[in-house]
Amino acid sequence: MKVIIVYHSRFGHTKLQAEAVHRGAAGVEGIDASIFTTEEALENAEQLDQADAIVFGCPTYMGSLSAGMKSFFEQVVDRWFKLAWKDKVAGAFTNSSSFSGDKLNTLMDIVVFTLQHGMIYVGTGTHPATSHPDSMNSVDGPGPEVENRLGSSVGPMAASFQVKPPAAPPKGDIATAEAYGKRIAQITKRLRG
Amino acid sequence: MKVIIVYHSRFGHTKLQAEAVHRGAAGVEGIDASIFTTEEALENAEQLDQADAIVFGCPTYMGSLSAGMKSFFEQVVDRWFKLAWKDKVAGAFTNSSSFSGDKLNTLMDIVVFTLQHGMIYVGTGTHPATSHPDSMNSVDGPGPEVENRLGSSVGPMAASFQVKPPAAPPKGDIATAEAYGKRIAQITKRLRG
Amino acid sequence: MKVIIVYHSRFGHTKLQAEAVHRGAAGVEGIDASIFTTEEALENAEQLDQADAIVFGCPTYMGSLSAGMKSFFEQVVDRWFKLAWKDKVAGAFTNSSSFSGDKLNTLMDIVVFTLQHGMIYVGTGTHPATSHPDSMNSVDGPGPEVENRLGSSVGPMAASFQVKPPAAPPKGDIATAEAYGKRIAQITKRLRG
Amino acid sequence: MKVIIVYHSRFGHTKLQAEAVHRGAAGVEGIDASIFTTEEALENAEQLDQADAIVFGCPTYMGSLSAGMKSFFEQVVDRWFKLAWKDKVAGAFTNSSSFSGDKLNTLMDIVVFTLQHGMIYVGTGTHPATSHPDSMNSVDGPGPEVENRLGSSVGPMAASFQVKPPAAPPKGDIATAEAYGKRIAQITKRLRG
Repeated sequence: MKVIIVYHSRFGHTKLQAEAVHRGAAGVEGIDASIFTTEEALENAEQLDQADAIVFGCPTYMGSLSAGMKSFFEQVVDRWFKLAWKDKVAGAFTNSSSFSGDKLNTLMDIVVFTLQHGMIYVGTGTHPATSHPDSMNSVDGPGPEVENRLGSSVGPMAASFQVKPPAAPPKGDIATAEAYGKRIAQITKRLRG
Repeated sequence: MKVIIVYHSRFGHTKLQAEAVHRGAAGVEGIDASIFTTEEALENAEQLDQADAIVFGCPTYMGSLSAGMKSFFEQVVDRWFKLAWKDKVAGAFTNSSSFSGDKLNTLMDIVVFTLQHGMIYVGTGTHPATSHPDSMNSVDGPGPEVENRLGSSVGPMAASFQVKPPAAPPKGDIATAEAYGKRIAQITKRLRG
Repeated sequence: MKVIIVYHSRFGHTKLQAEAVHRGAAGVEGIDASIFTTEEALENAEQLDQADAIVFGCPTYMGSLSAGMKSFFEQVVDRWFKLAWKDKVAGAFTNSSSFSGDKLNTLMDIVVFTLQHGMIYVGTGTHPATSHPDSMNSVDGPGPEVENRLGSSVGPMAASFQVKPPAAPPKGDIATAEAYGKRIAQITKRLRG
Repeated sequence: MKVIIVYHSRFGHTKLQAEAVHRGAAGVEGIDASIFTTEEALENAEQLDQADAIVFGCPTYMGSLSAGMKSFFEQVVDRWFKLAWKDKVAGAFTNSSSFSGDKLNTLMDIVVFTLQHGMIYVGTGTHPATSHPDSMNSVDGPGPEVENRLGSSVGPMAASFQVKPPAAPPKGDIATAEAYGKRIAQITKRLRG
């Protein structure tokens, strides 16, 4: 089973998130996990064709997916003409410098793209951290070390408050991404096994 | 393998679409397909818990999912607390009285709901009808008899121009819904078999 | 100039947010600001027709606008048939128990509704708090006392971590809502003066 | 009052739509209307700063705004840092080769961008064509010559079924765009006069 992470990152925050998704997938028995920048993915497009799952991640810039990721989407349009990625597992993740910061819109841009390709979309499959005993009934809410503190179900979200990598994204957001990689790999084994 | 269609319909258009999804699923070998209104689904909630796939459909009213469907979503919140529907297959469909009519927003409302439940989301897996030889290079575009004439990938869309059921939704939109039911059933067999 | 806040709230968090929007609008010279629950709004629908601005707010439940608000939207459909609210100023706000929690989707549901009515949509008009000196380069990010800590531009977001009102939403989210009421009132004076 | 149309178009369909929005705005007394490609807009960015209204339009590619437009959005980020476009009127339009084709998602990408800039968003302000006597109770729905046949409220949508410009977008979609330009100009005069 082959899982590929394709990411776009300018300052390195989303790269750390991508590496965590990759680590989570790679740790599942029977999974061959690779990680590509969008540029590397274009050079190795035949590997995408052979993959069982592809997970796409990029920063949220100005309220939607980054131009870097969108440009990649447009450059692989020939795969869409052939529905070459149909029935592969798909996933999405994003990072920005706010708690919320319109990150959902980026994930939705990616969800629509993957469904246009006929892929099968997998979300985080976890509750928001606010059902975690440590963060319930706290005005401050879940801290930066808590998994799924941002409460996303569509895909992992990370918030990097202009702190340079590797200080950001924080531990909790990295854990969210790693758990997602594991989930993607497990669903891929069930669907494509 | 158990597939359940849950729908809300006021005038009967969405009901016809739901019946087509049900027909498509029921026609796949090894599939036990049921169809419930949102009221019936609440009365038979334990059947939803036992299902392998649940497909949700409702009209697009004022640009989002109908209050009837949303009320159902809120009444099954106990399933979300337990993530009781995690890893089931999910799908969505909608009908309104315009070609576009903000139908995508309704499908997205349902997609987010199913991903909050940890379900695995399956779209139409087909090209828009505009790659169909009969509709290419036609100013009018694909007619009401053409499958996926509306060009949706997230889930089947239907357009019923205030014509009473069974005259609307038209043949092409019904075929789109039926093909979707078949796809949902096939993916369910692969993922949950 | 008449500004009306219409809100749906079950546990009282969104009510506090609505009252803050109202307070912000009422504090602007020349503004007559009212606040209605969705039930009161239906009983006083002629006041909505006379308003220069209407701001809609509700909790985010299961990833979209609450059934209570959606039901209200469907019950005022006669106003849409007549485009009776065309060119009025519109706004939206929401609360949920996560930092992010798919709140953007609720705001978008309301934005589409107001644009279907031909209303003029006004967002927060402010930067995310992450450009605030106190929260830059902090792993924790902006605290609960900081305005627009959640980084929303479409409309005010609040996060109430299951803490009972009036302890939640926190001070920063209330300030965000109040500043939004003021902005709505000021734009209303410019557009409708 | 200065209205600027900024568009990205690869094959010329969206260009025709942009020219129609421009024509509609230019026809309103007291309006100085300009039209720029995204490249021209970058070269004349100070004109955008002086504008009273900016309308953004691009094709829907793979379910979201084109990389060409997104790249432009990222290149004018310095305007966002200064909120230099705050309180200007904003609008959006899009074209694709399907009736629906996930066009709403592109408009939403643009709406979020404009609200991040603190702009005031104006939609079509019209009913869907399906309330038009000629298209009611017709299985086929409104033809290509009917204004707002696609039923959009967020901004003009056009469907060009792979027919080369100027045969597509069809007459009705061009009329929708022209009416929108007129509306943008009129609201601009009211808000910024």
